[in-house]
Amino acid sequence: MRTSQYLLATQKETPADAEIISHQLMLRAGMVRKLAAGLYTWLPTGLRVLNKVANIVREEMNKAGAVEVLMPVVQPADLWQESGRWEEYGPELLRIKDRHQRDFVLGPTHEEVITALVSNEISSYKQLPLNLYQIQTKFRDEVRPRFGVMRGREFTMKDAYSFHLTPESLQQTYDDMYKAYCSIFERMQLDYRAVIADSGSIGGSVSHEFHVLAASGEDAIAFSSESDYAANVEMAETLPLDTATVDALQYILVKAESNEENDDAPEWVLLVLSAAHSLNDIKAEKLTDVAAPLVIASEDTFKAVLGTGSDAVNLADVSVPVIADYVAAAALKDASISAADLRNIEAGDPSPDGKGSIEIKRGIEVGHIFQLGDKYSKAMNCGVLNETGKHEILSMGCYGIGVSRIVAAAIEQNHDEHGIIWPDPIAPFKIALIPMNMHKSQRIQEAAEALYAELVASGVDVLFDDRKERPGVMFKDMELVGVPHSIVIGERNLDNQQIEYKNRRTGEKTLLNLSEAAAFIGAL
Amino acid sequence: MRTSQYLLATQKETPADAEIISHQLMLRAGMVRKLAAGLYTWLPTGLRVLNKVANIVREEMNKAGAVEVLMPVVQPADLWQESGRWEEYGPELLRIKDRHQRDFVLGPTHEEVITALVSNEISSYKQLPLNLYQIQTKFRDEVRPRFGVMRGREFTMKDAYSFHLTPESLQQTYDDMYKAYCSIFERMQLDYRAVIADSGSIGGSVSHEFHVLAASGEDAIAFSSESDYAANVEMAETLPLDTATVDALQYILVKAESNEENDDAPEWVLLVLSAAHSLNDIKAEKLTDVAAPLVIASEDTFKAVLGTGSDAVNLADVSVPVIADYVAAAALKDASISAADLRNIEAGDPSPDGKGSIEIKRGIEVGHIFQLGDKYSKAMNCGVLNETGKHEILSMGCYGIGVSRIVAAAIEQNHDEHGIIWPDPIAPFKIALIPMNMHKSQRIQEAAEALYAELVASGVDVLFDDRKERPGVMFKDMELVGVPHSIVIGERNLDNQQIEYKNRRTGEKTLLNLSEAAAFIGAL
Repeated sequence: MRTSQYLLATQKETPADAEIISHQLMLRAGMVRKLAAGLYTWLPTGLRVLNKVANIVREEMNKAGAVEVLMPVVQPADLWQESGRWEEYGPELLRIKDRHQRDFVLGPTHEEVITALVSNEISSYKQLPLNLYQIQTKFRDEVRPRFGVMRGREFTMKDAYSFHLTPESLQQTYDDMYKAYCSIFERMQLDYRAVIADSGSIGGSVSHEFHVLAASGEDAIAFSSESDYAANVEMAETLPLDTATVDALQYILVKAESNEENDDAPEWVLLVLSAAHSLNDIKAEKLTDVAAPLVIASEDTFKAVLGTGSDAVNLADVSVPVIADYVAAAALKDASISAADLRNIEAGDPSPDGKGSIEIKRGIEVGHIFQLGDKYSKAMNCGVLNETGKHEILSMGCYGIGVSRIVAAAIEQNHDEHGIIWPDPIAPFKIALIPMNMHKSQRIQEAAEALYAELVASGVDVLFDDRKERPGVMFKDMELVGVPHSIVIGERNLDNQQIEYKNRRTGEKTLLNLSEAAAFIGAL
Repeated sequence: MRTSQYLLATQKETPADAEIISHQLMLRAGMVRKLAAGLYTWLPTGLRVLNKVANIVREEMNKAGAVEVLMPVVQPADLWQESGRWEEYGPELLRIKDRHQRDFVLGPTHEEVITALVSNEISSYKQLPLNLYQIQTKFRDEVRPRFGVMRGREFTMKDAYSFHLTPESLQQTYDDMYKAYCSIFERMQLDYRAVIADSGSIGGSVSHEFHVLAASGEDAIAFSSESDYAANVEMAETLPLDTATVDALQYILVKAESNEENDDAPEWVLLVLSAAHSLNDIKAEKLTDVAAPLVIASEDTFKAVLGTGSDAVNLADVSVPVIADYVAAAALKDASISAADLRNIEAGDPSPDGKGSIEIKRGIEVGHIFQLGDKYSKAMNCGVLNETGKHEILSMGCYGIGVSRIVAAAIEQNHDEHGIIWPDPIAPFKIALIPMNMHKSQRIQEAAEALYAELVASGVDVLFDDRKERPGVMFKDMELVGVPHSIVIGERNLDNQQIEYKNRRTGEKTLLNLSEAAAFIGAL
């Protein structure tokens, strides 16, 4: 590609409304432009990266035995009514009406459509397991879209859905997807972690998130210094600690789970933690005695229920169940106390798998795999005849990757003060060809054109900067765009039949003989 | 790909609600499934074809110097208000509101978005010409979606938009696109015609449609028996005919174009044609004297204005301008008559380019190229500084291809009573591997597995039918799906170390030695 026939669209100024570095660099490097809040046009450079990311995802999904389909963006409301999500889903689900005033949605996800499809197409256990995926445009009407394509309203997802008769079959496909995701992020040369995750509102019980590590990540991830254990901080288990380390306690009163069979059941539960720890709401909500969502008593209620000051509790007086953090529990005397994992994990804690200690880093979620179970298949009666001829509801897995989000996450992880530094496999171009003052020197032009022709002929993804620009402008643009390798052709080196190679990431420069340049580049 | 791990989804019965053959075959061959009116899920076999079509389009667009971008499906209403189409466009434009009650549309086309983009990104004549394209999902809320993906509501388009300072530059890109479109349809091995077309509501003056010829086509195309002249019947010029061939005349009274400067100007215009011809409304509307849209007088008005019976007119009495078809004009005497091309071309007419005579065939429109001029660039103030530093509004071309429609059109042109017959370049699979009773014969299984492994390793797109099905079921399925080549492995031929090759289109069968099979297939 020649820059003269291309839409490079680089910008010198950092746009004022771009808060994070990937958003700033995607605008400055001419990768995307905002059309409206959360809606972005992908310019040529951005689209080249997006397509490379999508192709790696597609290849690895195919290798793992998943089969590609393509479902519509616009989905009829009746399927969402059948699954129950027409009511459940918040205003992120954009509900629209067609010209006949029939209800539709712009699909934020496709569980309903795929479950209805498989329900119609698959009738026998012989056709299972089946794993169908698509790479497609989604719409989620975020209340406050931000960070460019990181949290846009229209975005590109890879979503896969698998169907099974047995838990073992679901686990097998889940494991295959886990491995495929690892291959995908490894091929993209991204520093990532597979993280044990909460399954969230989508349902199901076993789930991993895949995070690209970056200082700007929205999520905190706890991982072991010595094993591959990694978990979202919200989900990471903690081990009982030595009680000797507990200096002081803190007391938190929360609403009890209502008990209709026992009118005398306490209305409140007291949580006791080491004062040095922080309460993990999700863990507390999962306790059978505690109401979900968590309701924390006001200071007045605390006093009214416990009849004592808020900074110390005489547990002998307490008429509510007491659930204590491991550490605190050991420090208390009362027999009605039960011990539980209540707190957030912290850096320096022992790793829950017993190997090494915990480090906490921030991550950007770019993938998520779930064992959904029968949430959708049951609601939509998706089943097959099993080997004994009996109709059986299927269990499902679902596997998402934020294709457009990966582009931004890769930049958050790979940049410096000059711009983006693409890993080769997802770079918009592999190599930039930069002739200095070509428009004034015929022999530079000839050398550049000859090398360009040679590289194009051998299938190398090359960006030839043939603009009538000063060398400094070209260097800056190619660094900003983040092309991983560049070749500079200048008068002085040409005197020795040489050109200069520069590596964007290491800054390393090498002089190459003209005759060996194409071979050197091909071998990169 | 193994059928056992695939979603073949073939059906024996012809679906009752599918009116045309491509729709029937796409359902029966497991290519698409209806989700709602005009909304289709692409199953694996359909998507393989769709992706091959899209890739050929992409490659030829890139070769022709166009640069790929990707614009959002959801577009803000203000751009459509700026261009004037928010009011002009009918209910096919689906207008929606987001959670903040702001107006958006689901894009049926992207002139507004691209014009606004280029207006912001391009500032100098040095950056021109520029031709940007995308392959993307469109939505058009058809009042009566039908014929499957042929006239769906959500569909895949390639749309390109070019920007120019001079008519010569626009013409050059237009010509390049014309050639690229020819290459695209040639590579797909489709029988097509580039047809001179009316530019329709999108504006502009020079335009060609690209039609795939098929008996079921919605449009009638007139083309020469001896040259490459082709035109939509509505647009084809006619030459003056020998007046001796005119037996009788017909008279049609139509509303005159209003003339505010002359109160005495006639309100009606009389059109005179050979009784053997049919009036072409579009040609009549283009005459300066005639009001557009065409209003044909009722029989009563005809009598009131002309004061005579409707089956004959005494032209001496006529107080309205008379415009006559070439043929009729020569047969009439009155000096106030002007001659014009008023009629539809017919089979057997001489070709307007003077070479050969006209044949009429039906076609399916799959592509359309326009010279738009400044319709959008003027309304949206899209210009650059020219060489003298003056701001100049750009002129535009636009170039569409119905990617999903091509899939259906190819089937309309390529099928027989057994199913689809894909041209190799867009076939879902190049070759079907059909082992007979593999599950009962170890040596057939071994031969099939060995050949499959060899073909996969050499990158051949092969569908291995490893289902536990009777041979007849497999043969029928592979014919229905339309795989262009197949290999049958059976006991009797294996006795001679042979397998059978069959060509789907010609029906030709050849025995191959096992050892030469992979080389034979590779060379197809």
